[in-house]
Amino acid sequence: MKIVESIHEMRDIAERTRIDGKIIGFVPTMGCLHEGHLSLMRKAREEVDLLIISIFVNPAQFAQGEDYDRYPRDLDEDIRKASEIGADIIFYPGKEKIYPDNYHTVVIVEKITNKLCGVSRPSFFRGVATVVTKLFNIVRPHKAYFGEKDYQQLVVIRKMVKDLNMDIKIIGIPIIRESNGLAMSSRNLYLTDRERASALSLSRSLNRAKEMVDSGERAAERIISEMKSIIESGRFTEIDYIAVCDPEEFEDVDKIKERVLIALAVRIGKTRLIDNCIVEVK
Amino acid sequence: MKIVESIHEMRDIAERTRIDGKIIGFVPTMGCLHEGHLSLMRKAREEVDLLIISIFVNPAQFAQGEDYDRYPRDLDEDIRKASEIGADIIFYPGKEKIYPDNYHTVVIVEKITNKLCGVSRPSFFRGVATVVTKLFNIVRPHKAYFGEKDYQQLVVIRKMVKDLNMDIKIIGIPIIRESNGLAMSSRNLYLTDRERASALSLSRSLNRAKEMVDSGERAAERIISEMKSIIESGRFTEIDYIAVCDPEEFEDVDKIKERVLIALAVRIGKTRLIDNCIVEVK
Repeated sequence: MKIVESIHEMRDIAERTRIDGKIIGFVPTMGCLHEGHLSLMRKAREEVDLLIISIFVNPAQFAQGEDYDRYPRDLDEDIRKASEIGADIIFYPGKEKIYPDNYHTVVIVEKITNKLCGVSRPSFFRGVATVVTKLFNIVRPHKAYFGEKDYQQLVVIRKMVKDLNMDIKIIGIPIIRESNGLAMSSRNLYLTDRERASALSLSRSLNRAKEMVDSGERAAERIISEMKSIIESGRFTEIDYIAVCDPEEFEDVDKIKERVLIALAVRIGKTRLIDNCIVEVK
Repeated sequence: MKIVESIHEMRDIAERTRIDGKIIGFVPTMGCLHEGHLSLMRKAREEVDLLIISIFVNPAQFAQGEDYDRYPRDLDEDIRKASEIGADIIFYPGKEKIYPDNYHTVVIVEKITNKLCGVSRPSFFRGVATVVTKLFNIVRPHKAYFGEKDYQQLVVIRKMVKDLNMDIKIIGIPIIRESNGLAMSSRNLYLTDRERASALSLSRSLNRAKEMVDSGERAAERIISEMKSIIESGRFTEIDYIAVCDPEEFEDVDKIKERVLIALAVRIGKTRLIDNCIVEVK
């Protein structure tokens, strides 16, 4: 496995790989790889010739006061894990290479980024769309893999790729959870033991929502209210949002009639966690 | 020469051409080809294996009330001219293909688009940057050619390409003028004979500005004032802006010390024309 820090070198490798008619798979990450990332990488490894992982903690997707500085970083451990899965390249550019002085271009997916996480993190998705566009242009993947844990992000990237005519297949990979139900996230490292216990209420509330729908409940309001009481029964919790919405445009749904996304963001102490599930109605 | 209307087909041709190791050159246009466009195409023809011209009148770069509907279109004549120069492909997608229902992604180059033409046409450059990104992703050129007549546009595209790490060489081609000095533009077709006569004041004012600098004048204010009086001496003229500025960031220059851009936009009757020149100081 090769570590590539230079944009120029990365691009040359990608160009040569494409001319050779080989398939490039790409897993963009902010590092601190956990089982969620690894499941993306394993899936990609099965499907492509050249597997490229990027590790870049993207300042543009953190707002002032968010956790950019303390976001967990562990390159050695990431290298070990990626190598074990058989990744071919870790692309590891520095901040100055990705955003040099005098950088001022942004990619904005409008409308669907004003919902859910976009409300409390108004510049998050433009930061994501911009850096992913840049990484796509450097790595030139045929296929790119994103986790469904960040469901809105996955939809935003799909929309951007379609709207901007990028010739890239975007593949969503199901959420990986700890055995206790907690969705894998690099930010779980921030949690104290007591916060961790409390954080289990997130997946519990989603499970309860699924049960309710399975038992015939169709009123989003009653589902949200039940989820709310489950989450608020835990300590240190502060709900950012709980939404029952359509999975493409994220418009709130009152009566569940078809496939919906149930998504939430909750602060546990200082840590903001997200989780979601798709619920099908037969 | 082939006319390609399908995005899918255009992309397939581009992909195959790149895999063959051949060089793709691209001249994006809004059609109604004149000698300015043709000079871009001739230059490209010398430099590349596959020469692709696009013809697409981009609604996103026209504001409400601008001339989108009456913008001149003449596909048959365009085909004849492009074929004569030896273009390989005219990519001619429809509006519905480029902006399908539910389209909502934009590319914005900030800061330098708030100057010059960006002041009176605030959404123009985001329309240009967005459509050029889309066309680049479809046509996948190694080299793309833009006229220096739209100098700010050329700089904005260069900036976008650099910022978003697009692996495309942007080539600027000097302004082509009629023998009387009028810069070639599809919009010249709008002019009545009397407006046309009046429009000559644009290049005359730029020539005078050059003369003044050559004779040692360094005060932008005096140059602008002289240009203003030349343009205002013509009939039907209404100045949008006259600027003496640095050619990268478009910051106004008071005392000319190095290379500057002298740029202007003037309405002649209902027709808005632009022109510019670069002035070097020895």
